[in-house]
Amino acid sequence: MQFRYLDLIRECNPLVHCMTNIVVTNFSANGLLALGASPFMSTMSEEAAEIQQFSNALLLNIGTIHDFDVDAMIIAGQAANQHGVPVVLDPVGAGATAYRRTTVKKILDKVNISAIRGNVSEVAFLAGVAWQVKGVDAGRGNGDIAEIARITAQKYQCCVAISGEIDYISDGKQVAKIYNGTTLLPKITGSGCLLGATVGAFLGVAEKGDEFHACLEAGTGFAVAGELAAQGLNNQLGSFAVQFINQLADLTSEKINQLARIEYV
Amino acid sequence: MQFRYLDLIRECNPLVHCMTNIVVTNFSANGLLALGASPFMSTMSEEAAEIQQFSNALLLNIGTIHDFDVDAMIIAGQAANQHGVPVVLDPVGAGATAYRRTTVKKILDKVNISAIRGNVSEVAFLAGVAWQVKGVDAGRGNGDIAEIARITAQKYQCCVAISGEIDYISDGKQVAKIYNGTTLLPKITGSGCLLGATVGAFLGVAEKGDEFHACLEAGTGFAVAGELAAQGLNNQLGSFAVQFINQLADLTSEKINQLARIEYV
Amino acid sequence: MQFRYLDLIRECNPLVHCMTNIVVTNFSANGLLALGASPFMSTMSEEAAEIQQFSNALLLNIGTIHDFDVDAMIIAGQAANQHGVPVVLDPVGAGATAYRRTTVKKILDKVNISAIRGNVSEVAFLAGVAWQVKGVDAGRGNGDIAEIARITAQKYQCCVAISGEIDYISDGKQVAKIYNGTTLLPKITGSGCLLGATVGAFLGVAEKGDEFHACLEAGTGFAVAGELAAQGLNNQLGSFAVQFINQLADLTSEKINQLARIEYV
Repeated sequence: MQFRYLDLIRECNPLVHCMTNIVVTNFSANGLLALGASPFMSTMSEEAAEIQQFSNALLLNIGTIHDFDVDAMIIAGQAANQHGVPVVLDPVGAGATAYRRTTVKKILDKVNISAIRGNVSEVAFLAGVAWQVKGVDAGRGNGDIAEIARITAQKYQCCVAISGEIDYISDGKQVAKIYNGTTLLPKITGSGCLLGATVGAFLGVAEKGDEFHACLEAGTGFAVAGELAAQGLNNQLGSFAVQFINQLADLTSEKINQLARIEYV
Repeated sequence: MQFRYLDLIRECNPLVHCMTNIVVTNFSANGLLALGASPFMSTMSEEAAEIQQFSNALLLNIGTIHDFDVDAMIIAGQAANQHGVPVVLDPVGAGATAYRRTTVKKILDKVNISAIRGNVSEVAFLAGVAWQVKGVDAGRGNGDIAEIARITAQKYQCCVAISGEIDYISDGKQVAKIYNGTTLLPKITGSGCLLGATVGAFLGVAEKGDEFHACLEAGTGFAVAGELAAQGLNNQLGSFAVQFINQLADLTSEKINQLARIEYV
Repeated sequence: MQFRYLDLIRECNPLVHCMTNIVVTNFSANGLLALGASPFMSTMSEEAAEIQQFSNALLLNIGTIHDFDVDAMIIAGQAANQHGVPVVLDPVGAGATAYRRTTVKKILDKVNISAIRGNVSEVAFLAGVAWQVKGVDAGRGNGDIAEIARITAQKYQCCVAISGEIDYISDGKQVAKIYNGTTLLPKITGSGCLLGATVGAFLGVAEKGDEFHACLEAGTGFAVAGELAAQGLNNQLGSFAVQFINQLADLTSEKINQLARIEYV
């Protein structure tokens, strides 16, 4: 399989409607622009449905929501479902508080999701699997994570991307492990959130039925850009954030194909 | 004509009250600080009127508004009108959705605007001119844009700045075309929004009746800084955003005078 | 006295719940990550109390608040008090508008604060001391500022950090003056707000009764990082913001001990 969706993003400039949190709006929009996508950052319920008429993907990120934001997300999500626009859910902090647990369930009850992007503790909560991030050793954890990705994808009939030292992508049948990446990515705020938006951009140009490959290219491309950005840096987190946007802007499907380190489990 | 308002900004540090969207708050504030202005970022209706007592300019940017934000903007705008504080309107996405169309009209009905800053599709909507950004060839487009700037300025009796490959500034009589700039500016989020804030800073120190020259210096200075920031860069968008703030901090009226490439039509 | 809390932050990764303004969310979170702390950016009243069960510090920053944010801050603050979580108040713009004056008083009435971080005009308002930032000469001002810090600390029985050319830290008895720093810090937006969050991280690992030293290490470390970041730069504000995060990521208690220039008054 050859990745090719990033080149299509640069050609088609898919509009990604991001309903996301107040911490990452700027970084997410700049990341999407660097990839060739067209970010539309709007949280207003009044236009949430209308935007789906011309949107190519919708991102629902619950990082910093008020009740009126949740309402707007559900309006947007249902309109996206109606118009066949893929919806990405980023369940930030799901499991951490009762309000987030309730909110995520409310969204999943009312909106059909194409892809979920989260870290392992967030996705484990969605899977209904007990998970303690601290105290889990890497060996056992690795095996578990693939299974959590698969279970969650089956449960919600969507793709699942779990971010971590190794990234896991699943559609409920296949699970791919991405070995690209850098330890610097989780040290800059909003890197996971930007990956959620990136998954949106890739789904926005993907063929129906090929969502797994779109998510896999998104995750791999993102990790490759991180890897390249970290070269020559030694925990200079300010410079890394800048270099990461540079690398996203310079990324191509060809580069992803060349540098991808993927294992299927 | 010699530009001189930027030097006055560095001398007087005008306070620019920015009621702007959640994507660009940080970048706008840093850009204003780099120019020597003093950003006051507040969206609260409770203090929207009071701030106009000591504000030098007010920016209303509808990028991500809720109804309560619109109410606050109108309170601020009317108080600004009362105190003679210039008001800049940035009609982000006007024309894209019904809610934005209604919101922009509501603001224009209730607040006297000193300057409008937008891209051609946003301003064309305000002018009531049919405009399809995609599918318009450059030749015909160029001529039309000058006319759209002039018509809009006449209609709302204010200055109009249209951002694009070439920038257009008009006060309803004169139209100036700015040839400075770089293709990288539209690839970083909030560059247009920061230009709106920048117009505010320039109007905040301008003499009454000289708004056209203030807007022209703002637009030209901004484009010159972009041009200088792009030197030696090749689509490294992360580095460009950093260099752009560096160049704004290093900009002087003298530099703008030397590098300006302006044509009057 | 040897500083040592920063090393403890890197070891324990204290969770700092930041209820802060929309301008500085991203910069504050990246700064905390660079220091080794774990930022939790949430403004929702629904989870404001619950978060205090696992939070190590709470930051209340009134930069851009709506009424519902103030309610959430008070819920969070009272829960923090109940669970012994230290609370930092950043009274942004206190004194500038009636709404901010009322809001700050409301918070101080209902929440016990461990530390206040502000500039001299903000803290002078809290102290009830008349203060005109403009028109105060440095000589007289310097003496006054130490006294304002001490009075405010006594009045609210907390630590006080006043940011400026020289920083002042007081617990109502001792006052320390920090001579480290750079003129570039106040020229990037959110530097003061990030210092407030930083004070939270330090209090999050400090021993009970040692809050003064924790605040002093926070303020000194922050100023040292600024000093190092400014080296070789000449008003390049974009680069400075990047270098500042780099320096925070590279900072150690040892480095602070070596470079600290502190005077007790």
